[in-house]
Amino acid sequence: MSLNSYIRPGDNPDLTEEREKGIFPTNEMTQVIHGRELSERRKQLTAYIERSPALHDAGEQAFMTREEKYEDASRKMAEIFKKIKEIGSAPGEESFAHIVNEVIGIDGHPLALQQIMFIPSLLGQADEALLAKFGDRAKRGEIIGTYAQTEMGHGTNLRFLETTAHFDKATQEFIINSPTTSSIKWWPGNLGKSSNYAIVAAQLFLDGKKMGPHNFLVQLRDEKTHMPMKGVMVGDIGPKFSYNTTDNGFLKLDHVRIPRSQMLMRHAKVQPDGTYVKPPHAKIGYAAMVHVRAYMIRSQAHFLALATTIAIRYSATRRQGEIKPGAGEVKILDYQTQQHRLFPQIARTYAYYFAGSEVLALYKKTLEMIKEGDVTLMADLHAVTSGMKAVVSFEVGQGVEQCRMACGGHGYSAASRFPEIYGVQIGGVTYEGENMVMLLQLARYLMKAAEQAKKGEKLSPLTEYLNKKNGKSQLCANSANNAQYLIEAFEHIARRLVLRAFDRMNSLRQKGLSKEDAWQANAVEMNRASRAHTRLFIARAFYNRLHTNKVDDKRIHQVLTDLCFLFLNYELLDMSHYLLEDNYMSADQIGVIRESVYNQLKKIRPNAVSLVDSYDISDRELRSVLGRRDGNVYENLLKWAKANPLNKEEVLPGFAKHLQPMMERARENSKL
Amino acid sequence: MSLNSYIRPGDNPDLTEEREKGIFPTNEMTQVIHGRELSERRKQLTAYIERSPALHDAGEQAFMTREEKYEDASRKMAEIFKKIKEIGSAPGEESFAHIVNEVIGIDGHPLALQQIMFIPSLLGQADEALLAKFGDRAKRGEIIGTYAQTEMGHGTNLRFLETTAHFDKATQEFIINSPTTSSIKWWPGNLGKSSNYAIVAAQLFLDGKKMGPHNFLVQLRDEKTHMPMKGVMVGDIGPKFSYNTTDNGFLKLDHVRIPRSQMLMRHAKVQPDGTYVKPPHAKIGYAAMVHVRAYMIRSQAHFLALATTIAIRYSATRRQGEIKPGAGEVKILDYQTQQHRLFPQIARTYAYYFAGSEVLALYKKTLEMIKEGDVTLMADLHAVTSGMKAVVSFEVGQGVEQCRMACGGHGYSAASRFPEIYGVQIGGVTYEGENMVMLLQLARYLMKAAEQAKKGEKLSPLTEYLNKKNGKSQLCANSANNAQYLIEAFEHIARRLVLRAFDRMNSLRQKGLSKEDAWQANAVEMNRASRAHTRLFIARAFYNRLHTNKVDDKRIHQVLTDLCFLFLNYELLDMSHYLLEDNYMSADQIGVIRESVYNQLKKIRPNAVSLVDSYDISDRELRSVLGRRDGNVYENLLKWAKANPLNKEEVLPGFAKHLQPMMERARENSKL
Repeated sequence: MSLNSYIRPGDNPDLTEEREKGIFPTNEMTQVIHGRELSERRKQLTAYIERSPALHDAGEQAFMTREEKYEDASRKMAEIFKKIKEIGSAPGEESFAHIVNEVIGIDGHPLALQQIMFIPSLLGQADEALLAKFGDRAKRGEIIGTYAQTEMGHGTNLRFLETTAHFDKATQEFIINSPTTSSIKWWPGNLGKSSNYAIVAAQLFLDGKKMGPHNFLVQLRDEKTHMPMKGVMVGDIGPKFSYNTTDNGFLKLDHVRIPRSQMLMRHAKVQPDGTYVKPPHAKIGYAAMVHVRAYMIRSQAHFLALATTIAIRYSATRRQGEIKPGAGEVKILDYQTQQHRLFPQIARTYAYYFAGSEVLALYKKTLEMIKEGDVTLMADLHAVTSGMKAVVSFEVGQGVEQCRMACGGHGYSAASRFPEIYGVQIGGVTYEGENMVMLLQLARYLMKAAEQAKKGEKLSPLTEYLNKKNGKSQLCANSANNAQYLIEAFEHIARRLVLRAFDRMNSLRQKGLSKEDAWQANAVEMNRASRAHTRLFIARAFYNRLHTNKVDDKRIHQVLTDLCFLFLNYELLDMSHYLLEDNYMSADQIGVIRESVYNQLKKIRPNAVSLVDSYDISDRELRSVLGRRDGNVYENLLKWAKANPLNKEEVLPGFAKHLQPMMERARENSKL
Repeated sequence: MSLNSYIRPGDNPDLTEEREKGIFPTNEMTQVIHGRELSERRKQLTAYIERSPALHDAGEQAFMTREEKYEDASRKMAEIFKKIKEIGSAPGEESFAHIVNEVIGIDGHPLALQQIMFIPSLLGQADEALLAKFGDRAKRGEIIGTYAQTEMGHGTNLRFLETTAHFDKATQEFIINSPTTSSIKWWPGNLGKSSNYAIVAAQLFLDGKKMGPHNFLVQLRDEKTHMPMKGVMVGDIGPKFSYNTTDNGFLKLDHVRIPRSQMLMRHAKVQPDGTYVKPPHAKIGYAAMVHVRAYMIRSQAHFLALATTIAIRYSATRRQGEIKPGAGEVKILDYQTQQHRLFPQIARTYAYYFAGSEVLALYKKTLEMIKEGDVTLMADLHAVTSGMKAVVSFEVGQGVEQCRMACGGHGYSAASRFPEIYGVQIGGVTYEGENMVMLLQLARYLMKAAEQAKKGEKLSPLTEYLNKKNGKSQLCANSANNAQYLIEAFEHIARRLVLRAFDRMNSLRQKGLSKEDAWQANAVEMNRASRAHTRLFIARAFYNRLHTNKVDDKRIHQVLTDLCFLFLNYELLDMSHYLLEDNYMSADQIGVIRESVYNQLKKIRPNAVSLVDSYDISDRELRSVLGRRDGNVYENLLKWAKANPLNKEEVLPGFAKHLQPMMERARENSKL
């Protein structure tokens, strides 16, 4: 029996051939990627969904209008709610994301923000009374809520949000108001057409005194009729790059009154007499903020998993060009250029999955410690999630596009699903903290660490490499793929960039720049340092997954080691100028790294298909003609194309109306 | 009076402030970019279109379905044909592209392939009789044609096209046939629903002997009814990343017979007795192939012009965050990170415009020489267009995305128009020759040149840098922005990479690899060489535009010099590892380059808006709420959003059908 469990009769023989070449058991690799428990649960859910036609797409999503997509997602989400007990996974549980991916897709659905933001915010920030009143109603689906923070004029700089919440002592109400066009809430998911409630961030005013942004629960629409409440102007913000199933919305509030009890008062409070009670810890809100970012890394990895699955499988079935004249056309996966495009993307997928798990572990540990009143890990967590969110979302975007372009023309078709994957994924560079801002937040942490390092102080495990000595790298041709040397090279780069940015900042200060101006003039250098630091974190996470966490199966260990070395060498080559600048490495040593990349490509080649199969992404989830498990691409591409709306009529109405008469006129004129 | 001619009353004052800062006359810069004649013609056409409501969009394109987009493009193209004499520009003329950009947009239209491929192919390849019969009919719009070469299974490797054309001597006909699913023609623009004729590439068979791919004119649809002819299965291939106004199509031919005269026989011929007559020059077909590539560079530059116009104008009106606490929020264009994202993209836009003009000049010169029977420039032209097409299309894609991401959330909205610009532009990495293949074609030329260089032979002006000696760079802090040193650095990189790839190939051969296997194992290195060679070409073109071609106005010369130095330093920093590897430059010299980039950003800052205004892109062409000339973004964003189809009804039918009942059920259940 083959070690690859994805072989079926009737498959494209080119793909079966690849699967038979794999040297490791794919099922066990799946457990390394997703964890044993979740892997099994995913398979159960896939089987359940498979035998539940009510949970299947009503048609090809790529052919639907926004309204049709919205309706189909609504139908399926309502269906999930009907069967939630039978299914056995609920929103908030890790396996629920798999249900959404298979049943709905990645383009959003009407209850997404309810599940990701509205309920968690109530749980984390509402006081007992408000939670009792609305928390369970939301969980049961009696109401639909979202979280409205971003405004048309302000996303990043929350301190300058313009929406106001004035407390009216006489009536014990807050008056929520959008005073300007730029103050209109803009972007919140499901705000446009789905939600009847929203948690609204607004500047709290007490007796005319501005107290900064706080959160308030506001009813937007009548629970029965779903018509907007008095003073509420609400709607959808229009089509976007992707997420077009989602009704991102706008909201203008015209002096809308809500009872005092609808301020989210678990931490900060306003008492009936208008007295303000501060939250116990200033950083208490941070944990909620990093929540989504902490989970984003693995979901970004999963986007790259979708893309590499499609590109690798397709490249193993597409034949184009002869390498040896007369020997027949080869699989495009056999070209070095194709391998060099795609295999590093497989390596990054695994790296981001593993690093994402490390971030989640840190997040969970930090939450536990916070419960005990210990906030020491907060700064580390905030720094790590900021950097990871920025670096991974951007690099996954580049990776998805490399995968798409590696599939030539067919990659450009919606039949490949690449356009949707890229559109959705790349949203991640902007939402939950714009990447440049994220990198600068990490830089702030790194500049502090650099200062401590210069003083010889003890550093957090995440930055203690700053205290190591620089030397020359020991890497040589005989010691190629020495993991210690390679990780040291990552450390060298990060150390060099962090300390260089720190020194440059000081020298700008010495030239007379103010602290703020020096920070501005040094921003690009600091972002470079943040990227290098984060790439070191990822490299270590991949390496640690192989060594600190044991991988028992020797075949799995071998393939992951190959993949890890591809990753380490590829990333170092990409940053090689920092290795050369102060002769930490010579050109010959860079040559060793470069040749290692080529050698690793050859090692990965026979395992490429099994490596992407191991993500265990079903055809239902993948929704890609090019990436089908069975590899039967061409006949299904034709079937897909024939079904598209433009082929409903032989002659398009627009053609008959304008171009047929144009041709007639031209023929008449030429007869004259 | 201001030097910037785009200031109007009622504009956003933040944008007016920027325009007043510009130190050069925008109108004259426009003439440097587009040429004097075309600049003036563009303005006339813009004014004509402005006063012709029949040529305006029927509504917001981003809100339309594919069918609606198709209808609106058909309507406007038929209108253009009606008024073609009045307009005074016809397809094929340079100013016609401007008409299409303003009236139709960039997403394609039903007569695009007729104009770009069908008519030019008839002109270039049909014999007199066929041209007389169909050429004028096509020009007058009596018929609509396209060019059908790519098949489902073969795009790059034309030798393996599967469509067959057997000559039947008895009836003096060719029998055109699609024998397999993968042989179905796939992708040709306007093939799906618009064209009634196509030039079809097929393997010619004479008495059973395969003669390679040739072109044949096939009627696809009845001229009156537009219904497919007997034996013709034709349709649209479905939605894509972009170009959704275009009906890219599929075509399956079932033994369709055409008269012998419908083979395109200007070069190769089949005589009535079945005798094959070879074309006089083997490379005669090349000129047509490079035609589109030669024009692509400037049109890719124009995509980046659209993107930088939007991003720069928006960044000058968007205020977010304080640099000095209490000093008020600043324009995001004031952040170094934002400048570092955007200004190099302005520099690249100018570089690609200028380099594109050089490519076009080379193309025109080559065509003239070919007419005289001199094909000496063909190899150079083919090499230059291959490399430029690959490098520019990819880098423009990255640039457009940087522009989009630099606009945060609003950049992600279709209101920005970035999603469409990226989707359309990035198609260019795939069509007209997949980029990896293009780079390898240039590499073949470079490897030959390297061999000649090693032998000390004389080289073409494009590669004679290979014969220069390596030395150390003379660049130092006092000579920063010495153009000679910077261009020499580009030459050094290209020389190093070309010769390294050449040596590596030889060493692979010496290790026993066959010629083909060594080529394969060296492909990534050769592509790196091709990129470096092309980036040198672009750098020189920018520099030459300033010096060889005179720019008379001193203010224009100053700003372009600043922009050119930003370009040169930015590109070199991006390739700095190749400068460091053999100590051609020291880390200190790289530091000089790095600091030069930061200094140039400061110099560009006051001219940024005027630099993008100078592209002279009208609001009608730009179709972007964020990029509007007047900078009044927020109120128009709201207007745009309100008009989108999802806001036609307060309660979406999909919501009423599925989610209202879900909430009702939940409320009922909780009462139990």
